[in-house]
Amino acid sequence: MAKGFFIAIEGPDGCGKSTQIALLAAALKERGFDVVLTREPGGTRLGEEIRKVLLLSKEENFSPYAELLLFEAARAQHVEEVLKPAIKEGKVVIASRYAEATRAYQGGGRGLPLTEVAAANELGTRGLWPDLTIILDIDSEEGLRRVKGCQEGAAGKDLPPGELDRIEKESLDFHRRVRKEYLSLAEEEKDRVRVVDGSRAVGEVSKEVLALVLERLHDRS
Amino acid sequence: MAKGFFIAIEGPDGCGKSTQIALLAAALKERGFDVVLTREPGGTRLGEEIRKVLLLSKEENFSPYAELLLFEAARAQHVEEVLKPAIKEGKVVIASRYAEATRAYQGGGRGLPLTEVAAANELGTRGLWPDLTIILDIDSEEGLRRVKGCQEGAAGKDLPPGELDRIEKESLDFHRRVRKEYLSLAEEEKDRVRVVDGSRAVGEVSKEVLALVLERLHDRS
Repeated sequence: MAKGFFIAIEGPDGCGKSTQIALLAAALKERGFDVVLTREPGGTRLGEEIRKVLLLSKEENFSPYAELLLFEAARAQHVEEVLKPAIKEGKVVIASRYAEATRAYQGGGRGLPLTEVAAANELGTRGLWPDLTIILDIDSEEGLRRVKGCQEGAAGKDLPPGELDRIEKESLDFHRRVRKEYLSLAEEEKDRVRVVDGSRAVGEVSKEVLALVLERLHDRS
Repeated sequence: MAKGFFIAIEGPDGCGKSTQIALLAAALKERGFDVVLTREPGGTRLGEEIRKVLLLSKEENFSPYAELLLFEAARAQHVEEVLKPAIKEGKVVIASRYAEATRAYQGGGRGLPLTEVAAANELGTRGLWPDLTIILDIDSEEGLRRVKGCQEGAAGKDLPPGELDRIEKESLDFHRRVRKEYLSLAEEEKDRVRVVDGSRAVGEVSKEVLALVLERLHDRS
């Protein structure tokens, strides 16, 4: 049995993750791969309950540490229940967001110390990192414009088109810090983490994403 | 303004925490102290939402790491929103359970490595520890008998009298490991953590608890 493969698709809000994941999954299935799609926070029954608390809670003074730890709790369940078993069974797992998002949003966006974010990620991931992380990069203003103008009710949305969740509602400065942290973590792990310019036409982006994935999938065998 | 004081009342299920906390709070109020009662998991709007997930979820394969991190998420919110402000205002805070419970239940009961539990407690508490922790010790069989036979719908219960939550339902062995870990952590911090024999008559236990608390409250001034 082939070894499984774990891909995380990451990037700021509005970068086109949902669209690109759908296209990537279709292209891989066409080529005969056994693909599993999942998302964070969520991906399990418990995780979806936590997702609701995280994104839709009316709590006005949400502690950034509570936020950090809720993401990690959902992740721990996801790792045990979905990711590890699927990878073990030889599947290609595509996750919409994973631990790099926590560094970008809670580290970069909220400004929590990166050492604490790393400690939390260690507890949540239990050492499971993607074989390949692709960051779909986009200018923050353009990303937020896309989220607000979203007319089709993108896959994975918990709210009606055009309505923003608790984290999407953050300031432009917050989203700029998120983007900066994504780019900075990609610099540190140039091999495992790749940045793709997400501002181009959908077809151009998806070609580049697929090429990156196929190259790695061939390398592993 | 007097410095506040933080007391955690701990112990295995059925040890009599709710009763003893009510008696302690009444005795301290009589003596003019400004008392705040709170509980974990919970104590905040967000924390109560997390409490429901933790204690009432139907998730069958609850990852022990997800459980650990959910307790810490509720704690982080509790620390920022309730504990730190109340202590700063000079109040006497009595919490039903705190970070020692995480070591006893997730470390002792679930068997998670104590180093990981300590790392999680560091993220959840952000360094805030009780001035005094009182462990109401009770034999595990007797504790479970009390929980099951509870006829009065004890304060702090989320279920009808006699029904058990997800953690109370664990095996007798689980509850024995919890008790053992409570006693073992008390051995390590003999000054800050005190063990009281909770198997005696309510009035005897409450006298000893009050004496321990008053001694420390006098010491601090």
